Amino acid sequence: MSQRNDVTRALAEWIVDCRSNDIPEEIRTEAVRTFVNWLGCAIGGATHETVDCALAAVAPFSGSPESSVLGRSERLDPLHAALLNGISSHVLDYDDTHLKTIIHPAGPVASALLAIAETRPVSGAAFLDALIIGVETECRIGNAVYPDHYDRGWHITGTAGVFGAAAATSRLLGLDAQATTWALGIAATQSSGFREMFGTMCKSFHPGRAAQNGAFAAFLAQAGFDSSERAIEAPRGFANVMSDKQDYGEILDGLGTHWEAALNSYKPFACGIVIHPTIDGCIQLRNELGDDVGRIAKVELTAHPLVLELTGKTEPRTGLEGKFSVFHAAASALLRGDGSPTAFTDEAVNDRALIDMRRTIHVTTDPACNEASVTIAVTLEDGRRIEKHIDRAIGSRERPLSDAQIEAKFRDQAAAVIGEQACEALIRAAWQIAAMDDVGALARACAPGASRQ
Amino acid sequence: MSQRNDVTRALAEWIVDCRSNDIPEEIRTEAVRTFVNWLGCAIGGATHETVDCALAAVAPFSGSPESSVLGRSERLDPLHAALLNGISSHVLDYDDTHLKTIIHPAGPVASALLAIAETRPVSGAAFLDALIIGVETECRIGNAVYPDHYDRGWHITGTAGVFGAAAATSRLLGLDAQATTWALGIAATQSSGFREMFGTMCKSFHPGRAAQNGAFAAFLAQAGFDSSERAIEAPRGFANVMSDKQDYGEILDGLGTHWEAALNSYKPFACGIVIHPTIDGCIQLRNELGDDVGRIAKVELTAHPLVLELTGKTEPRTGLEGKFSVFHAAASALLRGDGSPTAFTDEAVNDRALIDMRRTIHVTTDPACNEASVTIAVTLEDGRRIEKHIDRAIGSRERPLSDAQIEAKFRDQAAAVIGEQACEALIRAAWQIAAMDDVGALARACAPGASRQ
Repeated sequence: MSQRNDVTRALAEWIVDCRSNDIPEEIRTEAVRTFVNWLGCAIGGATHETVDCALAAVAPFSGSPESSVLGRSERLDPLHAALLNGISSHVLDYDDTHLKTIIHPAGPVASALLAIAETRPVSGAAFLDALIIGVETECRIGNAVYPDHYDRGWHITGTAGVFGAAAATSRLLGLDAQATTWALGIAATQSSGFREMFGTMCKSFHPGRAAQNGAFAAFLAQAGFDSSERAIEAPRGFANVMSDKQDYGEILDGLGTHWEAALNSYKPFACGIVIHPTIDGCIQLRNELGDDVGRIAKVELTAHPLVLELTGKTEPRTGLEGKFSVFHAAASALLRGDGSPTAFTDEAVNDRALIDMRRTIHVTTDPACNEASVTIAVTLEDGRRIEKHIDRAIGSRERPLSDAQIEAKFRDQAAAVIGEQACEALIRAAWQIAAMDDVGALARACAPGASRQ
Repeated sequence: MSQRNDVTRALAEWIVDCRSNDIPEEIRTEAVRTFVNWLGCAIGGATHETVDCALAAVAPFSGSPESSVLGRSERLDPLHAALLNGISSHVLDYDDTHLKTIIHPAGPVASALLAIAETRPVSGAAFLDALIIGVETECRIGNAVYPDHYDRGWHITGTAGVFGAAAATSRLLGLDAQATTWALGIAATQSSGFREMFGTMCKSFHPGRAAQNGAFAAFLAQAGFDSSERAIEAPRGFANVMSDKQDYGEILDGLGTHWEAALNSYKPFACGIVIHPTIDGCIQLRNELGDDVGRIAKVELTAHPLVLELTGKTEPRTGLEGKFSVFHAAASALLRGDGSPTAFTDEAVNDRALIDMRRTIHVTTDPACNEASVTIAVTLEDGRRIEKHIDRAIGSRERPLSDAQIEAKFRDQAAAVIGEQACEALIRAAWQIAAMDDVGALARACAPGASRQ
């Protein structure tokens, strides 16, 4: 399998040939949950400073304003809108996660599709097909190179996401297998984004740029712009240049029968998955401790080494840096019971009481500890010791968010941005996307106060 | 040196602080040659199918048409114009080369600068400062990771070029050291482009995208969009993720006293540098053989293994593939005396006589042979054997093109595209760029028939 030389072509053929009727109903249902969760996150992030800066930069260069910047009144050409919506949907680190690869699948794919859906009539059924195919593509390509690719320093949501956006856009545009092969190649040669950028505005730039660049790849291919036809598997292609692992079976085996798109999960907390068990456990401890929270002398976490590798910042200075501090996240969960976006603001990470609390927190790493688990031991001033083990956090595949929880999360983020009335109307419409004739209407309903128009 | 953790910051400070007066006159003179050579190539490539396809794809998304697509009547927003001009300047593989890294320096940098210079008044002096600083930046970053980075499969003109465009644009916009550091970081996290794409339209996409993405990085940084401040040297930054070699002394040592920008060279033939000695030698042999060219039975080349690694296509099917066939290039040089863009058309690679000739050509590789040298042995039907050794090809640093040769190359490419009168006026103006008040006028003079307006 590792020697086959038609991986890109075979994947392209599946992207073209996959029949809507062959996608199982449960995959379609999960795709709606993926879409609703993503839309709420995009609106929730829309007022972030990162989006303000990006908008200021792109405004002078935008083409005709056909597509919405979700949660804002500004409009941009579809490729720039894809960039902005990809940024806003990820900027709070509150979006979805394919746990096998830590890819955040919706950002690159849905951001491209919805922006394009405002420029032409796209049915909900066609939209969901393209979303599923795009998510499947990026997650499978991620599986083929994970973990080596990620360990080397690549932000896989950007590097694999660009393939997802290209695949989904190719499908939406109705490209044939030849053009889709080129689109995957043009996407490959734009694959980029370093984990070094975590904690800065560039982290959310990655899914935004993946959406924009992947969509652009499909438009270029549509215009006859060609590329290598072996961009994924060639000796100097994506998998070999950007990873020491290449398992092409992960890309091609069981296409259309086994679905990675079914494995998406939705974050209950606005930060990296790796500290969700800690936040979950600390919130439970807070509820159990009551007033004793004020008498905590010491907190000891025992976790997998990845927790410190990814989120070991002891003194975060900004809200974005706070997302990479297990110390801050635990302190916020214990002291405020908060793991939502308000836990990761500049104010929060510089709050005196939270700073004092985070300095009581110590982490011991243990490679034998599961990455998805944590043990938390709290010692009070009077010497009492309470221990809590979290095997799998809320939001994991074992304890997934319910539809109602996804909806509450949407409301929590979007109501303040677009108004309660518009938010409620949008929630109702978004769950019904499968039956829509014109998905672009959903994007237009994301403007502040849209329901009054 | 390899341990220093302020490489990106120190480079940014130099980009900001480098004084125009401290740039030696000979560097400025070389920059004018770099600019004139690039401008001719951009016009020469403007009618290529690759540019047609890219234009068709970007047109629906372009912002206000402030900047010229050189050699054409279309106008685009400056970022899209940078993309298109970067493509056209490289599509014929006829542009400039920094021989130590095989970077083609002007494409990413000049394409960004000239497109922006149409949106605001930019003097020739400021333009040349920014061009020199951009070229210096990309070549030094290239030196820091070459050859490992290139050997791994990265197309270094794209991956390093994006830094050059970001540096040059930052300088042109007058960004401070903080914003310039961010611009380099935003550029780093977009660094991309595989050598796998050689022989396809994506090869010239790389310098185009580097120009566009690097310029965009500077505009984002200007708007306050931040990034890692150690994007080049961090453990998960550019040099470590994309190369096994990191020599930061190549970036910082002698900045402002030793100039990589002085080492640019200009191609006499429209293909990769590595087969220039072969073409040079074959043209000389053709001139010496006269009618005996028709009696060639066998041609034996002895060359460095890189020649076959980079240009080993035995049966090219398209003009672009022909640029990666030492067999076709040698055949064209022997049979037609042609190494110019007309040697690398679809017609040429499918010409019966050229196909017959290229099948007489055999290559022996010898690691002891210098990469810049070749030995050619021609055996005629009557058994006579003529040998020619090329130590350094025309166009190399040892045998550089004269100003008159650069001008003739410009005329050769541009006269047919924009008309002889416009071409002559443009040549005169381009050599005088250092004294111009508004460089944008040069771009507007590149439209077909511009001199009649």
